Amino acid sequence: MAEQLDAQNVIDTAHALADAARAVILPFFRSPGLTADNKAAAGFDPVTAADRAAEQAIRAVLAGRRPDDAIVGEEFGATPGSSGLTWVIDPIDGTRAFLSGTPTWGVLIAVSDSTGPIYGLIDQPYIGERFEGGFGHARMTGPRGGADLATRSDRPLSDSIVFTTFPEVGNPDEMAGFQQVAAQAKLTRYGMDCYAYALVAAGQIDLVIEAGLSNYDIQAPIAVIEAAGGIVTDWQGGPAHNGGRVVAAASKQQHAEALEILSRVPLE
Amino acid sequence: MAEQLDAQNVIDTAHALADAARAVILPFFRSPGLTADNKAAAGFDPVTAADRAAEQAIRAVLAGRRPDDAIVGEEFGATPGSSGLTWVIDPIDGTRAFLSGTPTWGVLIAVSDSTGPIYGLIDQPYIGERFEGGFGHARMTGPRGGADLATRSDRPLSDSIVFTTFPEVGNPDEMAGFQQVAAQAKLTRYGMDCYAYALVAAGQIDLVIEAGLSNYDIQAPIAVIEAAGGIVTDWQGGPAHNGGRVVAAASKQQHAEALEILSRVPLE
Repeated sequence: MAEQLDAQNVIDTAHALADAARAVILPFFRSPGLTADNKAAAGFDPVTAADRAAEQAIRAVLAGRRPDDAIVGEEFGATPGSSGLTWVIDPIDGTRAFLSGTPTWGVLIAVSDSTGPIYGLIDQPYIGERFEGGFGHARMTGPRGGADLATRSDRPLSDSIVFTTFPEVGNPDEMAGFQQVAAQAKLTRYGMDCYAYALVAAGQIDLVIEAGLSNYDIQAPIAVIEAAGGIVTDWQGGPAHNGGRVVAAASKQQHAEALEILSRVPLE
Repeated sequence: MAEQLDAQNVIDTAHALADAARAVILPFFRSPGLTADNKAAAGFDPVTAADRAAEQAIRAVLAGRRPDDAIVGEEFGATPGSSGLTWVIDPIDGTRAFLSGTPTWGVLIAVSDSTGPIYGLIDQPYIGERFEGGFGHARMTGPRGGADLATRSDRPLSDSIVFTTFPEVGNPDEMAGFQQVAAQAKLTRYGMDCYAYALVAAGQIDLVIEAGLSNYDIQAPIAVIEAAGGIVTDWQGGPAHNGGRVVAAASKQQHAEALEILSRVPLE
């Protein structure tokens, strides 16, 4: 990078992006005229509309505040930059959650350099919860106030809480691998979308296991969880920031025990 | 009943009970010293502690405000009354959700007469959302303000969103029945506990299908959903307020199409 990295500016920008996304998205969430029985709205997809409007708002804020950074967004693809930093954005992660009215979707905002994500933010606008991590801190704010984030410490898989969003997970091999982990876990739960990664960072659960992810699905969770003390890799133990098969773990023991099983799942 | 039913007093009491439960339960939710790695707390179950403390608080408020009503509570069983009304209480519905930190558990409060629930309330303390129905109104309040509740209107199963909490649903026959419904639905989601019933009442989703419920799990959802225009029965189309197999539907068409499949599931 030609210029010195201004961490505070990056953090402030990320919050400004999340604030802009909240303002754009919330009017679409649970809007009865849009999501239920409005005949005039037939064929109108509120999630896509909210997703696109939010990414446009995010890109407008970035153009004003940090025009030299690159952008990778779920809706509008890649915009090159010259600073060495890339904003990796999913305006609404969990579109099926959004469509169903569950407050488990989120706005995912990450900042990456050539090594991967260095800062990330998971925002749940309806609850008013925001989880962030990077530059040496990991923190959440929500309806009950703020708190530092710290993952759980080592514990055996047999005492662990494991999440994935869909029971199918991915292809049949991937589903079978997940089920082997789940069979050894204390508790398995479904349906939380990106919110499950926030729960790892917040010390509530031990493992999230998913497959078929894109880079914008996982870069923000990686930054938040790593800053809180956790580990995120692919199912072979390698970097996960390009997406694909991901295991997010609270600590080394949970990660090692899950990887022992998941690393044997045949590659696609 | 000897005395005239004072609906406003019943409603005010239900809110007082939910307020008391919130105050008692929230300090236990996501408490790091209780739920994660506090060695001194080994063997201490925060959900059970919160559950019991909340039901004690609820019973104390009822003793002061409506001493002649009967009570059925998940934690402390049945207390007889003389008014003809029974409060049916689950202080924390979704204990596994609570343990995992997901804001999908709830406080369930119902008031029943000899015909079944006549008023109910589903409260999610962390989000600060409350859904209520009975005595001719159905309403929610939450972080984005308040709104009347109305279920979705008729739509085919092929255009419906279906929820259950665990993919297993119940016994293998019950799971197979659910899967048949899910296979015909537009979207199937998991993991929402009692929050899914609130989403039916709020017009967000079409069906919740569960099995093995207790009366205190379903009486509040029945009252809220029916007041919002929906239908809750067992899998044969009969009353569901005693628990067991339950299907909650936004409207007649979704209910009929689900029942067409579920009524063929062999009885236990």
